Amino acid sequence: MHDLVVSGGRVALDAGWADCDVAVEAGRIAAIGTGLVGRRTIRADGRWVMPGGIDAHCHLDQPVWGGAGNADDFASGTISAAFGGTTCIVPFGMPGPGLTTVGALDRALDRAAGRAVIDFGLHAVVTMGTGADVAAQLEALAPLGIASVKLFMTYEGFAVDDDLFLTTLEAARRLGWIVMVHAENDAMIRRTRKRLLDLGRTDIRYHNVVHSEIMEREATHRALTLAEMTGARMTIVHVSSWQSAQEIERARARGVDVVAETCPQYVFVGASDLTRPGPDAARFVFSPPARSPKSHAHLWKELAEGGIDLWSSDHSPYWFADKVGKAEVPGFHTTLSGIPGLETRLPLLFCEGLLTGRLSLDRYLDLTSRNAARTYGFADRKGRISVGLDADLAVWDPSLKWTLGHRVLHSRCDFTPYEGREVTGKPVTVLVRGEPVIEDGELRAAPGFGQFLPRSADPTRVGKRIEDTTPWLDA
Amino acid sequence: MHDLVVSGGRVALDAGWADCDVAVEAGRIAAIGTGLVGRRTIRADGRWVMPGGIDAHCHLDQPVWGGAGNADDFASGTISAAFGGTTCIVPFGMPGPGLTTVGALDRALDRAAGRAVIDFGLHAVVTMGTGADVAAQLEALAPLGIASVKLFMTYEGFAVDDDLFLTTLEAARRLGWIVMVHAENDAMIRRTRKRLLDLGRTDIRYHNVVHSEIMEREATHRALTLAEMTGARMTIVHVSSWQSAQEIERARARGVDVVAETCPQYVFVGASDLTRPGPDAARFVFSPPARSPKSHAHLWKELAEGGIDLWSSDHSPYWFADKVGKAEVPGFHTTLSGIPGLETRLPLLFCEGLLTGRLSLDRYLDLTSRNAARTYGFADRKGRISVGLDADLAVWDPSLKWTLGHRVLHSRCDFTPYEGREVTGKPVTVLVRGEPVIEDGELRAAPGFGQFLPRSADPTRVGKRIEDTTPWLDA
Amino acid sequence: MHDLVVSGGRVALDAGWADCDVAVEAGRIAAIGTGLVGRRTIRADGRWVMPGGIDAHCHLDQPVWGGAGNADDFASGTISAAFGGTTCIVPFGMPGPGLTTVGALDRALDRAAGRAVIDFGLHAVVTMGTGADVAAQLEALAPLGIASVKLFMTYEGFAVDDDLFLTTLEAARRLGWIVMVHAENDAMIRRTRKRLLDLGRTDIRYHNVVHSEIMEREATHRALTLAEMTGARMTIVHVSSWQSAQEIERARARGVDVVAETCPQYVFVGASDLTRPGPDAARFVFSPPARSPKSHAHLWKELAEGGIDLWSSDHSPYWFADKVGKAEVPGFHTTLSGIPGLETRLPLLFCEGLLTGRLSLDRYLDLTSRNAARTYGFADRKGRISVGLDADLAVWDPSLKWTLGHRVLHSRCDFTPYEGREVTGKPVTVLVRGEPVIEDGELRAAPGFGQFLPRSADPTRVGKRIEDTTPWLDA
Amino acid sequence: MHDLVVSGGRVALDAGWADCDVAVEAGRIAAIGTGLVGRRTIRADGRWVMPGGIDAHCHLDQPVWGGAGNADDFASGTISAAFGGTTCIVPFGMPGPGLTTVGALDRALDRAAGRAVIDFGLHAVVTMGTGADVAAQLEALAPLGIASVKLFMTYEGFAVDDDLFLTTLEAARRLGWIVMVHAENDAMIRRTRKRLLDLGRTDIRYHNVVHSEIMEREATHRALTLAEMTGARMTIVHVSSWQSAQEIERARARGVDVVAETCPQYVFVGASDLTRPGPDAARFVFSPPARSPKSHAHLWKELAEGGIDLWSSDHSPYWFADKVGKAEVPGFHTTLSGIPGLETRLPLLFCEGLLTGRLSLDRYLDLTSRNAARTYGFADRKGRISVGLDADLAVWDPSLKWTLGHRVLHSRCDFTPYEGREVTGKPVTVLVRGEPVIEDGELRAAPGFGQFLPRSADPTRVGKRIEDTTPWLDA
Repeated sequence: MHDLVVSGGRVALDAGWADCDVAVEAGRIAAIGTGLVGRRTIRADGRWVMPGGIDAHCHLDQPVWGGAGNADDFASGTISAAFGGTTCIVPFGMPGPGLTTVGALDRALDRAAGRAVIDFGLHAVVTMGTGADVAAQLEALAPLGIASVKLFMTYEGFAVDDDLFLTTLEAARRLGWIVMVHAENDAMIRRTRKRLLDLGRTDIRYHNVVHSEIMEREATHRALTLAEMTGARMTIVHVSSWQSAQEIERARARGVDVVAETCPQYVFVGASDLTRPGPDAARFVFSPPARSPKSHAHLWKELAEGGIDLWSSDHSPYWFADKVGKAEVPGFHTTLSGIPGLETRLPLLFCEGLLTGRLSLDRYLDLTSRNAARTYGFADRKGRISVGLDADLAVWDPSLKWTLGHRVLHSRCDFTPYEGREVTGKPVTVLVRGEPVIEDGELRAAPGFGQFLPRSADPTRVGKRIEDTTPWLDA
Repeated sequence: MHDLVVSGGRVALDAGWADCDVAVEAGRIAAIGTGLVGRRTIRADGRWVMPGGIDAHCHLDQPVWGGAGNADDFASGTISAAFGGTTCIVPFGMPGPGLTTVGALDRALDRAAGRAVIDFGLHAVVTMGTGADVAAQLEALAPLGIASVKLFMTYEGFAVDDDLFLTTLEAARRLGWIVMVHAENDAMIRRTRKRLLDLGRTDIRYHNVVHSEIMEREATHRALTLAEMTGARMTIVHVSSWQSAQEIERARARGVDVVAETCPQYVFVGASDLTRPGPDAARFVFSPPARSPKSHAHLWKELAEGGIDLWSSDHSPYWFADKVGKAEVPGFHTTLSGIPGLETRLPLLFCEGLLTGRLSLDRYLDLTSRNAARTYGFADRKGRISVGLDADLAVWDPSLKWTLGHRVLHSRCDFTPYEGREVTGKPVTVLVRGEPVIEDGELRAAPGFGQFLPRSADPTRVGKRIEDTTPWLDA
Repeated sequence: MHDLVVSGGRVALDAGWADCDVAVEAGRIAAIGTGLVGRRTIRADGRWVMPGGIDAHCHLDQPVWGGAGNADDFASGTISAAFGGTTCIVPFGMPGPGLTTVGALDRALDRAAGRAVIDFGLHAVVTMGTGADVAAQLEALAPLGIASVKLFMTYEGFAVDDDLFLTTLEAARRLGWIVMVHAENDAMIRRTRKRLLDLGRTDIRYHNVVHSEIMEREATHRALTLAEMTGARMTIVHVSSWQSAQEIERARARGVDVVAETCPQYVFVGASDLTRPGPDAARFVFSPPARSPKSHAHLWKELAEGGIDLWSSDHSPYWFADKVGKAEVPGFHTTLSGIPGLETRLPLLFCEGLLTGRLSLDRYLDLTSRNAARTYGFADRKGRISVGLDADLAVWDPSLKWTLGHRVLHSRCDFTPYEGREVTGKPVTVLVRGEPVIEDGELRAAPGFGQFLPRSADPTRVGKRIEDTTPWLDA
Repeated sequence: MHDLVVSGGRVALDAGWADCDVAVEAGRIAAIGTGLVGRRTIRADGRWVMPGGIDAHCHLDQPVWGGAGNADDFASGTISAAFGGTTCIVPFGMPGPGLTTVGALDRALDRAAGRAVIDFGLHAVVTMGTGADVAAQLEALAPLGIASVKLFMTYEGFAVDDDLFLTTLEAARRLGWIVMVHAENDAMIRRTRKRLLDLGRTDIRYHNVVHSEIMEREATHRALTLAEMTGARMTIVHVSSWQSAQEIERARARGVDVVAETCPQYVFVGASDLTRPGPDAARFVFSPPARSPKSHAHLWKELAEGGIDLWSSDHSPYWFADKVGKAEVPGFHTTLSGIPGLETRLPLLFCEGLLTGRLSLDRYLDLTSRNAARTYGFADRKGRISVGLDADLAVWDPSLKWTLGHRVLHSRCDFTPYEGREVTGKPVTVLVRGEPVIEDGELRAAPGFGQFLPRSADPTRVGKRIEDTTPWLDA
C-alpha cells in the first residue's frame, strides 16, 4: 500500500496519454499502473494529470536596479507559479551593488528560504561588476549544487565583454556547467537609442528599433562562436526572432551543443502591440522585444518541430507605476523592460498549443518540464511522471474556461500583457513531492515548504577546444 | 498479483534508465514500479530491459523476382529478428507476376500465418504492374488494418511514374496512410548502367556510380515535391547520403510531413568496401549503395540529433550463390542487390551507438522502436515500456561480447556484411505480449505465435493540397 | 576615313558611358574614340548609343499547335523587334506535325529567308515526337551553325521524358551545344488541371495553381541534376519564381554550368493580374505564370546582382480571339498561353531598370545583349560596342516619353499586357551591320536584309560525366 | 595623329581579346581600333596588352610598430609593383605613435611624394588611438580625395571596439566612403595565444590555431551586421576561408553592399606550409593565416564565379631577420605577420588563373584592376583599356617563363613565400599615363613620376539605416 494514489485521471506519460493511477511513496513516484492502492487517494476523474511545470527562467526578489525592485518575492512568486501548474523554478542569484557572484547567490538563497512554496534551484550570474576571479567563484558555488551561470551581453553594468565571456565559458566547461546568454549587441543598442533620442523619436514603438532583430542575431552568432571555441554548453535564452533561431540551427550544424529557449511573449505579443495608444503600450515592453508575424510563425514551427527546447516565462515583475515611470508621455526610454509570466506560462501553451493540436503532447512536455530538467541537471529528480522521480504533479481541468487578468492571477504585479484573454484549461490541484500545494484551487502549502534543489553538473558533456584542433591536417 | 513480473533489471523507460519492475497482465504492461508481485517472475538482475525492437522495413518470402527468391520465410525471418531483440516487424505485401496490390497483400498474409514467431504488420505496395484502380485497392485493404503503401521510383516493372505516384498519394491522403518511397531516378540509373557496360567498366565498385548520390537526391526532391503538392505524409526509406538527408531537411522547412529512415549498412559499410577483391565485394551490394565517409558522418549526426527517425534493416536475404550469379567475374551488373540484417540491426546500434554514447538512450529508443510505432500507426500497441502497451520486452546482457557471422545468426542467409565483427551486448530473453519467445538464449515460441498487427490510419494528419492554395493572395 | 561614324552621342561601352565616336567599316566597328571621321555621319547628340539588343527567346511563324498560329511572321516580328531596339533574335526551329528536328529547323530557315529585317540565329528543338535519332539530327545541324537545342518538360507532344532528356544532353555535350529547358513538371500540371476542372474551379486565376511554383522548382532541380550527371551546359529559360532561382543557385554551388533567363512578364505582371474581371485577365496568361511579390523582389535582386543572366521576351504572339477561344466565360483551360514582347522588352527595362538606377549600366548590358551572345556562341560577332564586332547599334532618345499599346507597337498582335503603360526612352535609329534599319523612327530596311547568323559551339566547356567519377575514393 | 600608339598587340578589352591598336593623347586613351597612327609607336606584336594592374591593399613605409619597419619605401615598393605589371596602388596612411588619422595620412603623402614611380591613392585608417573626433577627421580628409577608411578588429592599439566602429561607419556613410575591415575577433585571438603559450605549444604551425577560421567568421559577421545597421558600404579585406566567404554571401542576400577581397597567399600557401621545419615556416606567416584545401577550393570557385571581387597583395614587407626575431627557436609568438607581394600578385594569377583557363579574361580583369577602381572611386580614371581613361598599360610576354625569388624581384624584402616557383608570363613594358615606367624590362621612370590620385566618394550609394526601419509594420 502506497502513501498516496492519484487515481482515475488521464495521465500524461512520456508514451502519451494513459488512463491509470500514479502511486507516491516518500515524495517520489513509486508506481504507475492500474489498480494501485494508497493510504490516501486523490481522485482525478475527468482531469488530466500532468508533470508539474518547470520554469527555468524567472526573476524574483532581485536587488533593485534600473530604479525599481521586483513586485514578487519568493512567496508571492512561487504561489503564483503553483497556481499556474508550475512546481519548480530556477531563478537567479542576481548581483546588485557590492555583491559578488557568490554573494548574490547567497542573498537569493537567503531570500528564498522560508518563503518558497515550491522547489527551486538557482542560476549564478556573472557581470562585469562581479567578474573578478570568476573561475574561483563558480568553483565555490559548485558544491552547493549550482550548475549554470548566466551572462548578459547588454545592460549597463551587466554586459560582459568577450574576455570575461571566454573566462566564464572556460570555467563553466571545466565544471560541467551550462552558460545561459542574453544575446543582444550592447553597442548597437546604445547607439540606436541615442540616435532615436537625438531624432526625437521616443514613442514606445521604437523599443523595437532600439532592440532590432539584427542586434540579437549578431550577439547570438558571437556567443555561439565563443561556445564553439571553448567547447562549452550554452543556452540562448528568450530567442525572439527567426534570425536568432536560424543562428542556433547553424551552430548546431557545426556541432555546437546549444539549447534554445523562448517565452510566451514571443508568440503571443507582437511588435504592433507597442503601437497601442498611451501607457497601454508599456504593458508589452520587454527585451528582446516582441517581433513581427514572420518570427511568430517561425517560433511556432520550431516549438512544434523541436528547434526550440524550452518554454520559460522570463517573469520580471514590476509595479506598473515603476514600469512606466514618471514621464508625462511614456517613451521607449522611460519604460522599464519586463513583464510577469510565471502563472500564465502554462495556461497559454496548454490552451493555444496543446488543446489546439499545434503541439503534440510530446512537444508540450518537452517544452514545459522535461527539457528544463535535462538542460539544467535535475532530470534524475524532476520533469516527468516516471517511477523514481519526485511526485510533482499538476491535475488540470482541461475544459475549464477562465479569463486572464492581474486580479485573478496571484503575482503581486498589477498588470499583465494578457489582460482579458480567455483560455481553456486550468490546474486545480498541484502536488510537490507528493504534497498538495494547491488542492481544488485552494492554497494548502505554507511558505518555506519549497526546498532548494541542488543540481548536477556534467563535466563530460563538452566539445573540442580550439587549442586542440589541428587545422594543418584538415583535408 | 500480476501474471508476470520482470524484476531486478535496469529498465529503459522514456524517462531514462530506472531500476524497477515491470508487471504484465493479459499480455500488456499493467504497472511499472517497485515492489511489484507476479505469479511468475523473470529475474533481470544485471541486465537491461529494453522495449522490443520494431523493424518497419524488411523483406520476407517475397515472390521471385530478379531471378532469385528470399532465403528467409516468415519463420526463419522472425526467429532471426527475435534473436536480434526485435519483437515486431512490418514487411511488405510485395507483388509478383499476376498479383495485384490486394493479391500481394493476401499472399503475404497467407505466407506469414502459422509461421511468424513475433507480431507483424504489412505494408501494401503499388507498382506500375498493380497500378490500375489503386484507390480502390488501397481502400479495400484499409479495413484489414493496413495504413501504409510503398512506391519504388526505380526497378523495372516496379518504378512508378509521376502520374501513378500522384494517384497513390491522393488515395493515401484520403485514407490517412503514409507513403513509403524508394527514391532513386530510374532513367539516370539505366543510362549510367548502359554507359558503363559500353565502356567495359563492370567491376562491382561501379555499383556506386550506377546508383550515384545525385540520382537519389533527384528522386528524393521529386518525391517530396509530390508529397508537398498533395499534402500526404511520406517516409523516405533507406536514406544513404547527406544529399538526400539535406533534401529532407529542406522539405521539412517547407512544411512537408516527412519521416526519414536509414539502415545499418549506410553507416557501417562504405563505398570502398565495394573495391574488395573478388566475390567478397558482392557481400556489400545493396541499393542505394554504401556511401563515402562524408555521408556516414552526416547520418551519424542526424541519428544523434534527430534528423533521421527510423533505423530499419531493409533485410533482403538472398543465398550468396544467387546473389553473385553465374558470371565468372562478378560485376555490378551480375550481382543482386540486398543483404540480410534483421538480427544484426539492434546489436550493431546497441554496441556502436548506445554503449559508446554516440546516441543518447532517448535517441536509441526513438530509432529502434518508438518512431516506427508512431510512424506506422500502432503507437497505442507497441514501441515503449509504458502502462497499457503490449508487453514486448527484450532483456539484454549489456556486457556480453560476441562475434557476428552467418553461422551464429539465425537467418537462412549464408553470408553477412558484418562477418567477423565483434560486438558487445546481446538480447538473452525476449517477450512478445508477455510470452517468452526467446528465454536465456533458447527459442521458446512455436511458429504461428506471432500475430498480424492491424494498424490505424490518421486521415486528419494532412497538409494543404495545391488546389486549395491561392497564389494570387500571396504577399 | 571610315565608312560611317556615329558621332556626338553618349556611348554605352563596357567601361561605362563615354562621349565619343564609333566608326564603322564593312559592317563592323573599326574604331572607338574621339575625332573619328567617316564618309557618312549619323549625329547622336543628346542621345545614347547602345549595343543593339539581342533577344534569344522568341517564337515566330511556328507551325500551328494548340489550335492557333503565331500572329507574327519573320517580317512583322523582326520589324517589331527593331523598333524596340533589338538587332538580333534567336527564335526556334519548332517542330510541327510530321516534322523532325532537322525538318523543323529547315522550315524555320525557309520562313525567315527573305523576310527578316534584322539578323537571326535559330535554336533546334527536340520533342518526344522528333526524338528518334536525336544525336544524328543534332550532328546534322551543327555544320549550319546551330549550337543550342531546346527541350520542354511539359506540354502534350512536346514534353520529353528523362531518357530522351539524357540522350539530348549527351549529344549536346559532345557537340559543345547548350541545352535550353522549359522546366515544369508535366504530371503535376495535368493532375492539377484535371482536379480543378473536376472541382469546377475554372477561373483564369487558377492558371497560377495549375502551374504552381513547386512544379517549376521540381522540374528545375531535375533538369539541373540531369545536367550535372552529363556535364552538359544548360539554360533554364523563363525563371519565374524565387524557388527556381534558388535551385539554380544551388546547382551553381555544385559546379553545374547553368545560365538563368527571365522575362519582363515575371517582374511587371503579377499573379493578381489574373484575377482581373472578364477576358481582360487573359492578356496576362503565359507559362510559367506571373508570380507574387516575393518572386518579383527576388528576381529584381538577381537581375541587379547577377544571379539572372538573360532578359528575353518569350514573344509568343496570338491573335486575342485565338487566345481567349470561344468559351462564353474564358477559363484557365480555354485560354492560350503566350504574350507578345519583342518590342517592349527593352523599353521596359531601359525605363524601369536603367533610368531608375535599379540596374547598373553594366548589368543592363549583360542582360540585354552581352550575355545572350556569350551564352549562345556569337560573342565574336555581336553583343557589345567594341572594335571588330558587327556595328549593331541602337541610338536611344533617353528622355522621350511614350505610351505602350498594341496600336503603336509593330507586332501584328492585337493586345499587349502593358497596354497604357507609360515609359521613358525609345530607340530612334537602329543599325544592323552599320546599315540603318530604323532611322529617326522610320523603317528603312527591306524584308530579307536580315541574315542568318551561324553560331559556334564550344565542345571544351563541359563538366565531369558521372561515369568518370570515383565515389569509392571520396574522402 | 596621336601622341603614341601601342600597335600590333593582342589587347585585353572588356569585350575580350582584340587585335588592334591603342592610341594615347595627353596621357589618356584617345582611340582603340585598327589603323591608328601616332607620333610614337610601341610595337606589341606577339604580346598581350593588359590594363595596368591596381593593388588596393598594400603597406609601404609605415611607422614602426610590432618592433620593425617596412623594408620598402614608396620608391622600392612602387618599382617592385611596376615590374609586376601594376600601375596604381592604394596603400594606407597608417597611424603610428602620436599620429592622428589626419596626421598619418599627411605623413604617408609626404613619404610618397617624390618617391613613387606609379600613381597612388591612400586609404585613411582609424584606430582606438586615433579615434577621437573621427567624423571631423574623415571630413577633413575628404577634400583631398580620400574616400575610404580602414578599421582593424584585432591588433593591440589598433582594434576598434563596436562603438568606434559604428561612429566610423556613420561618418563614412555620410561622406560616401567605403569602410575596409580586417575582421578577426581580438579577444579570441588573445585568449588562444595565451592558452597555447601556457601549454607550451609555440611551434609556428599554431599561428593557424591562434587565428582560427571561426574567429575570422565571427568578426566578419559582426562587421557586416554593423554595416547592415548603418547602411554603409564595406570591404572585407583578405578573406581567407570559406566560412568568411559564406558570411559575405549571407550578408549580400540580406542586401548589405559588401566587397570581398582575397590575396594570392590564400590560394597559393596552405596551413601545412607552417609545419615546415625551422625558420623556413616563418616565410608563410601572415594574418589571417593560410588555410586548408577546402578554403582554397572555395576561394578559387568564388574567384572564378564572382563571389570575390578583389585580388590584392596585402604587401607587408619585413626584413627576414626582423620577421623571425631573435628567438632561438622561432615560434608563432615571436614571428611577425606579413609577407611581400606587390610584384608577384599579377604573375601568379596570370599564370595560374588566366593561362590555365581557371579564370576567364573577364574575371581576371575584374579582379586585378576593374573592381579596385570601381570599389574605391576612380573608375573614371583607371582600371580598363577604354577611351578616355588613363593610358595605364602593361605589355606582357605571355610565354616568357621565369622563376620567382627574392633576388629577381625588386622589393627590398629578402624573402618571398614563392621562392623557386616557376611561372609563365611577365610584363615587359609598363606605361603610366602613356609614359613608359618599364620598357623592355628596364626601369625608365624616375622617383616622383607617380602622382597622388584623388578619388571620388559616392554619398548616394547607401542602404537603409536601422533608425529608419519600422518593424511594427513588418508583415
